[in-house]
Amino acid sequence: MSDNEQNHGTLILLRHGQSEWNASNQFTGWVDVRLTNQGREEAKRGGQMIKDAGLKPSVLYTSLLRRAITTANIALDEADLHWIPVIRDWRLNERHYGALQGLNKAETKEKYGNDQFMEWRRSYDTPPPEIDVDNEYAQTNEARYANLSEVPRTECLLDVVKRFVPYYEEEIAPRIARGETVLVAAHGNSLRALVKYLDNISDEDIAGLNIPTGIPLVYRVGTDGTVLNPGGDYLDPEAAAAGAAAVAAQGEAK
Amino acid sequence: MSDNEQNHGTLILLRHGQSEWNASNQFTGWVDVRLTNQGREEAKRGGQMIKDAGLKPSVLYTSLLRRAITTANIALDEADLHWIPVIRDWRLNERHYGALQGLNKAETKEKYGNDQFMEWRRSYDTPPPEIDVDNEYAQTNEARYANLSEVPRTECLLDVVKRFVPYYEEEIAPRIARGETVLVAAHGNSLRALVKYLDNISDEDIAGLNIPTGIPLVYRVGTDGTVLNPGGDYLDPEAAAAGAAAVAAQGEAK
Repeated sequence: MSDNEQNHGTLILLRHGQSEWNASNQFTGWVDVRLTNQGREEAKRGGQMIKDAGLKPSVLYTSLLRRAITTANIALDEADLHWIPVIRDWRLNERHYGALQGLNKAETKEKYGNDQFMEWRRSYDTPPPEIDVDNEYAQTNEARYANLSEVPRTECLLDVVKRFVPYYEEEIAPRIARGETVLVAAHGNSLRALVKYLDNISDEDIAGLNIPTGIPLVYRVGTDGTVLNPGGDYLDPEAAAAGAAAVAAQGEAK
Repeated sequence: MSDNEQNHGTLILLRHGQSEWNASNQFTGWVDVRLTNQGREEAKRGGQMIKDAGLKPSVLYTSLLRRAITTANIALDEADLHWIPVIRDWRLNERHYGALQGLNKAETKEKYGNDQFMEWRRSYDTPPPEIDVDNEYAQTNEARYANLSEVPRTECLLDVVKRFVPYYEEEIAPRIARGETVLVAAHGNSLRALVKYLDNISDEDIAGLNIPTGIPLVYRVGTDGTVLNPGGDYLDPEAAAAGAAAVAAQGEAK
């Protein structure tokens, strides 16, 4: 271990690759859609980048959703790290999109107008309307959430911050403070919630931050919890910039 | 939960599907080879059988080897159980095949004769010669085994019994005694070691027991640890019989 490795830990954030509903431009949230072939390729490239960068996470955290789990499985296999311990927790899940889950983004924008659309997508503290418990895209009775006192029916980004950041502080940050490298495979909005916390981004400014799919974002964190490289470093900065712009443009096309 | 489910737990054993070295007829042991496409298909069918049987494991145990990990990932995805907790441990690993690792089975049989070949494959307490620490197929310096006081250089089935059965008793059996369903994705010889224990098979008779790839083997275990269906039940008994015969015939063909 070099001197450089001894005085900080490393956090690698990986947003899942393209899912079926990214491709069809639908609000997804907690609906458990699959990766597309493109998404699987993104995961593979993400794993290759982790390997090429010489990063060796000692543990993987994922959400309970298939697109993050599959992304991590593929990426770790590619990086020859398929064997590391895995911890899955619902607190890493994507933001629950409420009654919007399943709706087409472009149609929703057309129907409700751009202002309402952007408020639902990017308001920090206003959630979309709740989904009906018997909606086909609600998660009311799913076995994987049986230990929750109540399954969410909608969430704003603040709700995600409230569930994910305490979990990060309790479960993940202590490992990083001990100098470990931790891989977190999760979602656009759960990762935005974490980045808001890590980089101390304001409630207003977080609306403009978009995280691209499949490109590892690496934070070096000191033993006192201080981020040593504010904003983090994408392992492929050019592809990350293009990917973030594509996320920002969602809702434009059907 | 029905009455039937309340008084026993369930153990599902799944041997990984065909690997590259099953296909090329080489001794594998701890060498971390990949599944073939056929092996991936077997894993998928295994997952479908688990789903069709209505089995819902609450936790997965795997070895640290890619072929078992990938088999479990594919099977659980197929069964819509990709989200269950995962625990990986080296004690579930395949038997270390010592200096035989990497050698072709048919060539080895030809060179050393059938008696020596069968003793190496099936002797309960005589391991093959140790592998050199600098052999390309040794695991001497692999990071995944960094927490072992010593990485094995060869093992007989008794060695596998000694490492896996206590782990089963401490970590897995208590869950089953509480009524849980547990999936164990592992290897021909680590599963033989466990089956020997579960069915109280003699040191001599275990030589004749072969476990087919990709077909879930289900044990119902009472709260006192008694196996309620001695021998277990394969979810596809006909395919299991054919598969076991194929395992027994290994070494015949190059």
